[in-house]
Amino acid sequence: MRKIAVRELSRAGRLSVVASAILVSSAAGANEDLMRVAKRIFEPIPSAAPAVRDNPITHEKVTLGKSLFFDSRLSASGVISCNTCHNLGTGGVDAGPRSIGHRWQLGSRRAPTVYNAVFNVAQFWDGRAADLKAQAAGPVQASVEMNATPDHVLKTLNSMTDYVVMFSKAFPNEVAPVTFENFAKAIEAFEATLITPAAPFDQYLEGDEYALSDQQKTGLKLFIEKGCSSCHNGINVGGQDYFRFGVVKRPAEGLLPKEDKGRFAVTKDLGDEYVFRSAPLRNVALRPPYFHSGQVWSLKQAVGVMSEVQLGAKLSDEETDEIVAFLNSLTGQLPKIEYPILPTRTIATPKPSLDK
Amino acid sequence: MRKIAVRELSRAGRLSVVASAILVSSAAGANEDLMRVAKRIFEPIPSAAPAVRDNPITHEKVTLGKSLFFDSRLSASGVISCNTCHNLGTGGVDAGPRSIGHRWQLGSRRAPTVYNAVFNVAQFWDGRAADLKAQAAGPVQASVEMNATPDHVLKTLNSMTDYVVMFSKAFPNEVAPVTFENFAKAIEAFEATLITPAAPFDQYLEGDEYALSDQQKTGLKLFIEKGCSSCHNGINVGGQDYFRFGVVKRPAEGLLPKEDKGRFAVTKDLGDEYVFRSAPLRNVALRPPYFHSGQVWSLKQAVGVMSEVQLGAKLSDEETDEIVAFLNSLTGQLPKIEYPILPTRTIATPKPSLDK
Repeated sequence: MRKIAVRELSRAGRLSVVASAILVSSAAGANEDLMRVAKRIFEPIPSAAPAVRDNPITHEKVTLGKSLFFDSRLSASGVISCNTCHNLGTGGVDAGPRSIGHRWQLGSRRAPTVYNAVFNVAQFWDGRAADLKAQAAGPVQASVEMNATPDHVLKTLNSMTDYVVMFSKAFPNEVAPVTFENFAKAIEAFEATLITPAAPFDQYLEGDEYALSDQQKTGLKLFIEKGCSSCHNGINVGGQDYFRFGVVKRPAEGLLPKEDKGRFAVTKDLGDEYVFRSAPLRNVALRPPYFHSGQVWSLKQAVGVMSEVQLGAKLSDEETDEIVAFLNSLTGQLPKIEYPILPTRTIATPKPSLDK
Repeated sequence: MRKIAVRELSRAGRLSVVASAILVSSAAGANEDLMRVAKRIFEPIPSAAPAVRDNPITHEKVTLGKSLFFDSRLSASGVISCNTCHNLGTGGVDAGPRSIGHRWQLGSRRAPTVYNAVFNVAQFWDGRAADLKAQAAGPVQASVEMNATPDHVLKTLNSMTDYVVMFSKAFPNEVAPVTFENFAKAIEAFEATLITPAAPFDQYLEGDEYALSDQQKTGLKLFIEKGCSSCHNGINVGGQDYFRFGVVKRPAEGLLPKEDKGRFAVTKDLGDEYVFRSAPLRNVALRPPYFHSGQVWSLKQAVGVMSEVQLGAKLSDEETDEIVAFLNSLTGQLPKIEYPILPTRTIATPKPSLDK
């Protein structure tokens, strides 16, 4: 087998390597084999929000979290909300390549999608947040993003009775529920509902042989055989482990800027230089541009780059199209979201601050 | 009667002046009289979208318009949509005082609300757009707002098949329906649905004596007697005609900056210096800060300013509270809006441009 991972492969990754060998050795085109192998490597998106650690999902918490997700008044300027960069109308991301934040500053990486993020092993491209509640606490404070402070967030929330009531309902056993931690937990609860089941690939994994076209099945087979699924596996078809970007060949400088060393910044381990969490590929067709640098605008081109720099493989045009067709089968059903009517600001609500 | 308007009063305004006299001369506290008078001055918000000129409202057009309203890719940067400044979650306005646009530039005035805007005599604080379709064509092109061009808008829309199909359905009899004019018409159609019926005041106008509290009725009576309704009348409790800001006394410089001469910029008539469209007061409690300069954050303070500079009246604290209570009765039922899933960008979609 080719060497792909810089670290030990995840369980699904190891399965994928084994499965790839099985597939290659079995009769080509054996559809049942393909489905059986796929079921060992991947997992369908469930139809309901999964449980998250230390944070029971309740209707009240999700309702609160949705309001917080859309409330730009939690940013210093009053302009930027979670949804600004993780736009639920455009695949859970913004227009790219890098997000624009407070005072028109540029973020350092492409916004990751919030859809199905609950299934990732950790959050951010470098996995620096263990879960969504840890993640939610980040951008609101980042000076290039929302540029707020926990104090600003709490003053803003406490200034509006409707928010205080919503927190009381979402955290019913707490005496003083309006805390920065609960703010993050409510957002996590809402985000846990942002899952996209029933993609053609999910239907296939659940046994519907006809959910994928022949081209998509061929693409799936290639995706496994060529080694893509060694890193992109599990429920999110990625997002489960960390790998070097440029295993076989260093990508172009534009794609892998020298100054962004990825997970190295988190672990300080030299082995983690230019290592990133494998991109989760659910709904990938909905959200160009691709890679953490956001420099590739076509899915076909992205597949070409990956095969070259990660696998050292030269795919034919037809093969690339087949893999792209498979990736298109990963587009699921996005949840219907009623746009929240937010609590009305009061005289005690902090005013927007447009400067530093 | 006190002199309020710089121009001939509108029909409802004249009625209001007459009605005011009737009220004063009738027995104080005569509830039927108050309701009868109110019905002559104001009008309830209907439960369904009104017809708009040259633009039949269809479900397909509204659906398209909603997507356009929320689509930030129609701005040059890919960051700013109509909803950025006319946020449907916060009363149809942004956090204020002035809107932030392309490259963090500041707009010159407070964003007007999009809710019930269809009932205004004309659009913008100075009425420079005759209707919502004319209005919709403005901000998308304004360099300090979305900074796009009709060409950018059409290239963006034409790059996504789903949008082209939506235009075909919304304008079924046109050979080439993706035009800048139709873009504006679709937004107008969506905005015509952004009406907020069933406020307590609407229920009162429809005959429910108990829809307003005693304090609110006293406030309504004061609102008429003191002369507020001479300018703030009709279906939108304002928005029907143009008046000088500072009839009796020039407001503080912060509230009425010298360089913004209001409607004068539209008509070049010296009589229109510092003249603005009277603010529509529907849902006014939902959307501080107030005035075109957005410098007043409390409704009570805004009422105080208006009585002083427009009417030369000194209201007691109790009277001010009563008028504020009445204004709170103008908060209607905001429509439920499902956040749109937007068409996916293609390789032909113009890329975000963050600079000029």
